[in-house]
Amino acid sequence: MQLLRVTVIVISLCATSTLASYWEDRAKLIKSDRSIAVGSSLVLNTKEEAANEVLMGYKFKEYDYGFANPGEFLPAQHFFKGKAKVERSEVFKIIKKLPKGASLHCHDTAIGSNEYLFNLTYKDNLYGCWKNGIYLLYFFNETSVGNDCDWQRLSTLRSSNESFDTFLKSQLTLVVDDPDSAYPDLNSVWSAFMGIFETVAGLLGNKDVWQEYLYQVLKELYDDNVMYLEFRGILPDMYDLEGNTYEGVQVVGIYYETVQKFKKDYPDFQGARYIYAPRRKVDNTTVDGYVELCLKFLELYPDFVAGFDLVGQEDLGYPLIDFIPQLLKLKDKGTKFFFHAGETNWNGESTDLNLFDAILLNTTRIGHGYAILKHPALYDVVKERKIALEISPISNQVLKLVDDHRNHPGSILIANNFPVVITSDDPSFWGSNGLSYDWYFAFMGMASRNEDLRFLKQLAMNSIEFSAMEEAEKEAAYSKWRSDWEKFVDDILVDTPTVINIR
Amino acid sequence: MQLLRVTVIVISLCATSTLASYWEDRAKLIKSDRSIAVGSSLVLNTKEEAANEVLMGYKFKEYDYGFANPGEFLPAQHFFKGKAKVERSEVFKIIKKLPKGASLHCHDTAIGSNEYLFNLTYKDNLYGCWKNGIYLLYFFNETSVGNDCDWQRLSTLRSSNESFDTFLKSQLTLVVDDPDSAYPDLNSVWSAFMGIFETVAGLLGNKDVWQEYLYQVLKELYDDNVMYLEFRGILPDMYDLEGNTYEGVQVVGIYYETVQKFKKDYPDFQGARYIYAPRRKVDNTTVDGYVELCLKFLELYPDFVAGFDLVGQEDLGYPLIDFIPQLLKLKDKGTKFFFHAGETNWNGESTDLNLFDAILLNTTRIGHGYAILKHPALYDVVKERKIALEISPISNQVLKLVDDHRNHPGSILIANNFPVVITSDDPSFWGSNGLSYDWYFAFMGMASRNEDLRFLKQLAMNSIEFSAMEEAEKEAAYSKWRSDWEKFVDDILVDTPTVINIR
Repeated sequence: MQLLRVTVIVISLCATSTLASYWEDRAKLIKSDRSIAVGSSLVLNTKEEAANEVLMGYKFKEYDYGFANPGEFLPAQHFFKGKAKVERSEVFKIIKKLPKGASLHCHDTAIGSNEYLFNLTYKDNLYGCWKNGIYLLYFFNETSVGNDCDWQRLSTLRSSNESFDTFLKSQLTLVVDDPDSAYPDLNSVWSAFMGIFETVAGLLGNKDVWQEYLYQVLKELYDDNVMYLEFRGILPDMYDLEGNTYEGVQVVGIYYETVQKFKKDYPDFQGARYIYAPRRKVDNTTVDGYVELCLKFLELYPDFVAGFDLVGQEDLGYPLIDFIPQLLKLKDKGTKFFFHAGETNWNGESTDLNLFDAILLNTTRIGHGYAILKHPALYDVVKERKIALEISPISNQVLKLVDDHRNHPGSILIANNFPVVITSDDPSFWGSNGLSYDWYFAFMGMASRNEDLRFLKQLAMNSIEFSAMEEAEKEAAYSKWRSDWEKFVDDILVDTPTVINIR
Repeated sequence: MQLLRVTVIVISLCATSTLASYWEDRAKLIKSDRSIAVGSSLVLNTKEEAANEVLMGYKFKEYDYGFANPGEFLPAQHFFKGKAKVERSEVFKIIKKLPKGASLHCHDTAIGSNEYLFNLTYKDNLYGCWKNGIYLLYFFNETSVGNDCDWQRLSTLRSSNESFDTFLKSQLTLVVDDPDSAYPDLNSVWSAFMGIFETVAGLLGNKDVWQEYLYQVLKELYDDNVMYLEFRGILPDMYDLEGNTYEGVQVVGIYYETVQKFKKDYPDFQGARYIYAPRRKVDNTTVDGYVELCLKFLELYPDFVAGFDLVGQEDLGYPLIDFIPQLLKLKDKGTKFFFHAGETNWNGESTDLNLFDAILLNTTRIGHGYAILKHPALYDVVKERKIALEISPISNQVLKLVDDHRNHPGSILIANNFPVVITSDDPSFWGSNGLSYDWYFAFMGMASRNEDLRFLKQLAMNSIEFSAMEEAEKEAAYSKWRSDWEKFVDDILVDTPTVINIR
């Protein structure tokens, strides 16, 4: 870990013995410590300083209340239990308004708010069927309904069973009253998690519904003051109710058109890019196919397809090492990688060894990288090459890597100014949305009590800096973000009530 | 964090593109990573290599079983739930036999096994009384019994109530079936924890019982293959049944004599030192008194009293900064410090700021230092001055800093070769004893899958190196330890059953 050296202070420490020199050394050492973290090199202007005072007034009050009442501290609670209280936090309210830049790690079918997702189940031609789980599918009319399962219109299921909606909602979310009992270990929560992806795949398999959904995803991010998106997807086949099917390049085209439509409607939104991220648990021949497809996408949509990744529970395989020849081929053709790697608390298993392959393959960013601090040989590479670590606080908690955000390695990565961005992963499935909830936990749970507006500003700037945007696009994004930022700072100063009252 | 730089590899990585060079770079990078951790610089001899194979056979089997069945992995479970299974682990059995060197962080009244502690409640003259908790006290005879409380002989309480023993046991331990419900937050577990200290103080306030207890403590450590002890204590007043009372220097003398008696009976035990560690939640005048006492102890028992510390739940105050003039006075007189500091997952509160004061006061070791990685300005100082961090895995779990040992900062400290020792804190109160349980969690939960016998050997050597022993004592301890180590290695090779079967 390449850090600011504090040798000068180290040397002087041994000499400390008078009270005056003690306080001087202490102040120096603490100042030196606080000059390292993410954002600490930024200098705020007068207005920003004033806004920072408002923010920190709320933060100190909330943080110190937690210090005195540790059971009440929200970053130490499960998100399912603390979410409503987070929404009442004044710090959260400020973060919601803050221009957060880009959202760089989320999966296409798991981004939109869960409420919106559920509303889609009222689509006319949607059918459901139970086969070790609920499956959803659209049929053009009664005669086209498949006979592979006992398909029934959702409207029929709803009217025949009062509790159907409650059941259906439960199939679209991991949220439960008692997550510890419902998901006793990592594999059980991943199993439920993967099940939701399957159910949602049916709900969004209809091209027209998908387009409506993606548009809404962009709108929700826009409303959460996020200006740009890079999203991963496995690229499923799609169909419409006229009997057309779409696959591969056509599906990328559908994504692209939807983003273009949104950008036309909201010209200050800076756009979106797609990371082709198919399932990892496949054989070599399948990955050969991925490579061909990916290269085709990059050729046809060079400004929209950002690069390649592989998805699925890393612990269950297959690691990157299984596909090195294929991945080297992509690398040689200039493909950018955005690999999931080290999303684990294991140390020395295939999951964290993925970090080595991701870095050897010159990955542009690392999805999660939760295990990176257990591998010091990688620190310098990550820092020197500015390989951003995509930290998803709520995801890591819900998917059972860590309970208390203060124990998340992000706390150490932030303290040491590693290149980080805060991301949302699959907010839909845990009742989150946008970026604000994850930013709240990074700010209140991972960053120190002292990290302030500079930290949040740096996170926003990092998200643009570490995106796959071209330089000219980044410039445009920065320019727009700067004006949003100024407006945000003004708004804080205008909005502040005289009495600060968190609870 | 001052680490091995891997610049050569960093540079070559970008050039990687052929398959052959890829594998070469990968091997180099992984090798470099594995050359950093605690113990990785040691070179094993042929016998040790053979013993290591036995150890690692068991470790890989147990670790990989956990990887496949994460809910079964013992370092991810609460100690109260997993303890019996730990005892069946072959890795644990080897660790029990391993000569572990010194035990450097534990509190005098909380070291002996809980079973032994309970047996002491059968002492003849012991009385109990209920006043918002059970209090214990010895009275010479019926007429000397105090009237400040409804004191009754324990034998009477026992015979009058069948469930009294169950109740009494519960007052001497934190162990419960469902710790998460019993102790919902850190303050609640600390409150119960402090209550046990009060109950036990009554049980051990009788000088003769205390001496018997301390002797047993040393015996249990000895049986767990620990050769030397440094223990903290608040130095309570004592009495005997002849009506004598003992305080201050006299109590230190009682401790010293007991250790001498044990050393006489077990000449290969290397001895013990006492760290005077009174309560921190007191005013300045009280600390003035601590200083005077401590200096007197050091003058009278320079080979037995190692130095000074302050105890009590750090989060509740008072931090070291409240007593700087007093502590500087001790420092000027050459007193060694062994400060508790940063036993917290807060960041930027008084508890982790204690780390700065401990280091500015030139502390010899740091008790816990759990928060150190959130303060990069301190890394170099800790490493260059070899300020050992006393890591107590089970304590940090039971006292609710972290649930899963894989998320303990110790995992990162170990990976980065920080100066660490593994310690037990208050094993009595959570049903542990000796050092083996804590070493097991460090080896299986914090160290990587690859850390092997060299890691354990280094831990043992660290415990001697970072002790307060004089150089000549250290030499003697090393010499004894080396012969124990050779015997241990031989024993592993002899004992190994043909079939390795963990569960």
